This record gives sequence, C-alpha cells and structure tokens, in this order.
Amino acid sequence: MTLVNHRITLAARPVGLPRPTDFAHGEEPVRDPGHGEVLVKTRYISLDPAMRGWMNEGKSYVPPIQIGEVFRAIALGDVVASNDPALAPGDHVTGMLGVQEYATLPARSLTKVPPIAPLPVLLSALGMPGLTAYFGLLDVGRPQPGETVVVSAAAGAVGQIVGQIAKIKGCRAVGIAGGPEKCAYVRELGFDAAIDYKSSDVAAGLREHCPDGIHVYFDNVGGDILDAALARLAMRARVVICGAISQYNATGKITGPANYLSLLVNRASMTGMIVMDYAARYSEAIAEMAGWRAAGKLRSREDIVRGLAAFPAALNKLFTGENLGKLILEV
Amino acid sequence: MTLVNHRITLAARPVGLPRPTDFAHGEEPVRDPGHGEVLVKTRYISLDPAMRGWMNEGKSYVPPIQIGEVFRAIALGDVVASNDPALAPGDHVTGMLGVQEYATLPARSLTKVPPIAPLPVLLSALGMPGLTAYFGLLDVGRPQPGETVVVSAAAGAVGQIVGQIAKIKGCRAVGIAGGPEKCAYVRELGFDAAIDYKSSDVAAGLREHCPDGIHVYFDNVGGDILDAALARLAMRARVVICGAISQYNATGKITGPANYLSLLVNRASMTGMIVMDYAARYSEAIAEMAGWRAAGKLRSREDIVRGLAAFPAALNKLFTGENLGKLILEV
Repeated sequence: MTLVNHRITLAARPVGLPRPTDFAHGEEPVRDPGHGEVLVKTRYISLDPAMRGWMNEGKSYVPPIQIGEVFRAIALGDVVASNDPALAPGDHVTGMLGVQEYATLPARSLTKVPPIAPLPVLLSALGMPGLTAYFGLLDVGRPQPGETVVVSAAAGAVGQIVGQIAKIKGCRAVGIAGGPEKCAYVRELGFDAAIDYKSSDVAAGLREHCPDGIHVYFDNVGGDILDAALARLAMRARVVICGAISQYNATGKITGPANYLSLLVNRASMTGMIVMDYAARYSEAIAEMAGWRAAGKLRSREDIVRGLAAFPAALNKLFTGENLGKLILEV
Repeated sequence: MTLVNHRITLAARPVGLPRPTDFAHGEEPVRDPGHGEVLVKTRYISLDPAMRGWMNEGKSYVPPIQIGEVFRAIALGDVVASNDPALAPGDHVTGMLGVQEYATLPARSLTKVPPIAPLPVLLSALGMPGLTAYFGLLDVGRPQPGETVVVSAAAGAVGQIVGQIAKIKGCRAVGIAGGPEKCAYVRELGFDAAIDYKSSDVAAGLREHCPDGIHVYFDNVGGDILDAALARLAMRARVVICGAISQYNATGKITGPANYLSLLVNRASMTGMIVMDYAARYSEAIAEMAGWRAAGKLRSREDIVRGLAAFPAALNKLFTGENLGKLILEV
C-alpha cells in the first residue's frame, strides 16, 4: 500500500495579510523512513504568529520558508513506522512536522511526549506558547511579588499563560485583549483586570488598573498598545518583546514605539526573547507547569480548527484577532 | 558694597528649537549666605542636551524649570563667602549653580573639587559627561574585550569619552559624527573608525566597520541613526539609551525606532540610563578616569563660549551640531 501525503506549501510571499493564493495544496507519495528515521502521522498542528515572519524573505532568527517548500510548523503526531530504536510505533512525538499529513524525518529531531495532558495542551500550555510565557516572564521580565505585570494579547496562546504565572508568583496581573468575550475569559483565569482595547482607551485603562505603574510589560502586539504601556512604566521596569502581531502584515515601514524614551526617564529596559534559546531548560519548565496545571492553577483554552484545507484561513484568524486561546489545526 | 547678580531665566516654554525670546536676562542683588550656606561666584557653566528637556512641561526624571526661574545648570565656581565650616573662600565647588554670576546655596548641595585637572575638564571628561559615559558604557553596555562598541554624537561631550573607554577595555570603537572635522577628531582619539552621517550612508558605514555586528550601541541621538544601528545588532547586543538629541526639538510626536524588532531577532536589550543614579559611585569613577587621563589614555576637548549673554545661542549649538567636544560657558 502506498500512502499519500497531503500537504500545504508556500506558493508566494504575501504582501500584507496572506491570501489563499499564497498557499498551494499538493500531494505526494509518503517516503519510507531511512536509517535513523521515523514516519509520523500528524495529528495536531500549532498555528503561531511567528509563521507570518517565516513567509517573508530576509534575515531573521530562522531562515524563511522557501517557495514550494512544505509550510513549516510545530506539530504533534503518532509514530507509524520507525527505523530508529529510540522511537516505536504508537509513540506521540512533537517537532517540526510541517503542515502535512505525514512527515518522514530523523528520530533525533523529534521529542517523545509523555501522556501528562490531552494532546492539544501539549501544543499549548505545556508546549511552545507555555514555554514562551514561562521563560519570557520569569527569565526576562523577572517579576517580584507585589509588582504589576501587564500582558497584551492576554487571551491568546502565550498571554493566557503569562497572566496566570504572574498570579502564581504573587503579582498583580492585567491583561489587554480585544472584545468582551476575551476580556471575560481573562478575568475568569484570575487576572486582576482586563482592558478591552477595542472598546476602551488603553492608556486610561492602564492608569486605572496599574496605580503603581507597570513593572513588567510582556508585549505580543507592538504598535499603539506598546506605546500606551511604555507611557505607564514604573521605575526600572522590564519590557519583554515577545512579538508584534499588529505589525506582521504591515506593507510599509513598521511603526516604532514613539514613547521609547520612557525607557530613559524610568531607567527601564526592553529585551527581545526567542523561546528556542531555552531548549536546555524546557523539561524543567514543563515539569513545573504540569505541576501547576495538576493543582488547578494553570488553565488554558485551545481553539481547534479541523482539516488541512482550513489552514490558510485559520492562520489569518491570528492576525484578525478571531482566535481565543491557542489556535490548533486538527488534521 | 552690594554685589549684583546677572542671571538668565526661562521666559517661555519653547516650541521646537529655543528662540532668544524664550530666555530673559535679569539682575538682582546678591543674597548673603545664611547659616550653612555659601556664596559662590560662577566660573564655568556646563551646557547639556538635557537642558532642552528641562524647558518642557510634563513628567520627567527631574521637574521642569519654572517660568521666571533661573535656568538650571551644573556649573563650577569659587566660594567667595562661607557660613559653613565645610567650605572656605577660594574653594572650587561644583553643583547646580544655574546660569548666573553668583549663587547663594547650602554648602551640602555642593561638591568641593580637587585640583586634579583644569577646571573645564572637571565639567567634561571628569564631570557629568565623563561619568555618563563611564557608567552608561560599563554598567549598562557591559562591553567585553574584542566586542564592537558604536557610539553616536561621537565627537560630543559624552561620545568622545565612550569610545576611549571602549578602547581601554579592549573593544573595537566606531564613532558616528557629523562632518569631516568631527570625524577626524574621533579618529585622532583612537577610535577604529568614524562614520560621517552628513556625507555618507550610516547603514553602509556600519556594515563596513562592524563586520561582526554591533555588540554595544551607545545612543545619544535617536531617530534614523538609532534605526541604522538597530539593523546591525549582533546577537545579545546591548543598546544604551543615553539621549535622543535629534528628537528634543520635535514639535510633533517623536519618531520611534522602526527597527526595534531587531531586539527580538537578536535577543538584544535596550536600556535607559540617567547618570545621577550612580551618585554613590562618582568618586570611584572619577579616580579611575583621572588615572587614565594622567596616563594619556583619556583625552577630551572643551568648546568654550564666553559671557552669560551668549547662553541662548550657545545652547542651540548642541542641537544644530555646531559644537565639538564638551560645550561650556565661561562666565
């Protein structure tokens, strides 16, 4: 029996918001695993804002996806055939499987995942978004008990975890999110306050909910919201630059933070972070977060879309702000 | 005999570049020192970019100068009468004397300066600009031997010191300055390269002179030059935000760094610094810099303008880029 692999490739580099024609659907026979390789059937694909950056040409922290190449993605799947003693059929693994039904790749490029949570959670609270929140907040933001932590895209994959870890660490947590449903979710998670950037003035909200200023601002969005947060920094505040989703589809020059001199006035810092720098400490962080999850202190929501063909439209939900929680494609 | 004090006060808050009508010249009888006070005759007044910020209303790291108030300035003078045992007539002192011929103020608000260098140098390499360079570069920038340090306004009061300390610490030093005379001066100080932003492309200059990227960028100017430096950061680079002279006279919103996401890609940081936070360590730093100066490793140039009446025009030299080295008014 020859298995057929359905996959999605990059057809063109988008200008602005990706369009359906920037993607191509293809099929090819599945390649048998060679020595040290395994064949994995993809089950859940992680949809991440960073994907938009991978579609662009130019230097970044990883090379761009090439035209015609399968769309790069972190995903979770089941081993169906193995030519490596480290993995056996039936094992759940995570890695760069790509947006496709099957992937044949070296066993050492995959991580076997333990059955500590439902599979989608392993791509969410206990996956890259959770790790990004954990290391970005704790290692770069360094919040102290009693300090105020503000996070943008607070109902998103990373933001939902940032606020909950802030609470676990004894901080005041304030989330910025778009719309009443997301704000209600953020409050339900235990954040002290939620600011709806679609229906209210963010600067006024930050003045109200951060009476002592912002000690740690975890930024996922850039643009006007970053500027509003900069204007409200406390002395020696730490700004964590995790992403800038408001700018990823900019067709002109992106908008820099006009209030960056607040860093000078407040002796504050703004630092970029990329989660993969912390790979050596992933297992330590996942163990701690799994403990919080088991204790009911760390919850997450996953927004699951079904079918490979839904990928292009689903990806754009990230940029139009339609997803709530971690966006995942179930294959 | 009644002494008359000539002084310059703030007459109006400027919009854009300060105009002569934003200043007023006045005279008043000199006030005799009360208990614990001294009377100081001003000799040299430090002219600093920060003065432009003090002319604006609004929250900053120090309160604004009030309309009608004597213009705030760090200066150096001679004690002419003392009502405090800590200081005697003839002592050289530095402090917030203001732009005036005489100041009557508490002895404890002044620092007695030792005769370790000509007086103008005590307002330059061995004064606030030197201390700003020292702590900004060493404490915030943390350069390692072999790294590349880039500084803007490299022929200015702070920049000239930053590059020389970078060389003392075993780094490659690249200066950005405006015009051939300033660039020649920067090279003469021992910088490895100077980039003339007025006659050449800064981005191309940084590519040429920073083949391994920029490890520490010490920014005094903001605007396009900050953006060019951000685009050329090395991994884990440190950007020190010391000032933004290109933006101080902006009448609209200031221009934020469009390339700030380079912080994310390069896991770099951007941190603001204010020299007065290091007051407890000034004497330690001055002792070390005086040693470098005595050894011929740390030079400085002072641009001395004469007469109180020249103050308004002299101040604007900082913003039009006409000064070379530390700008000082000799009373």
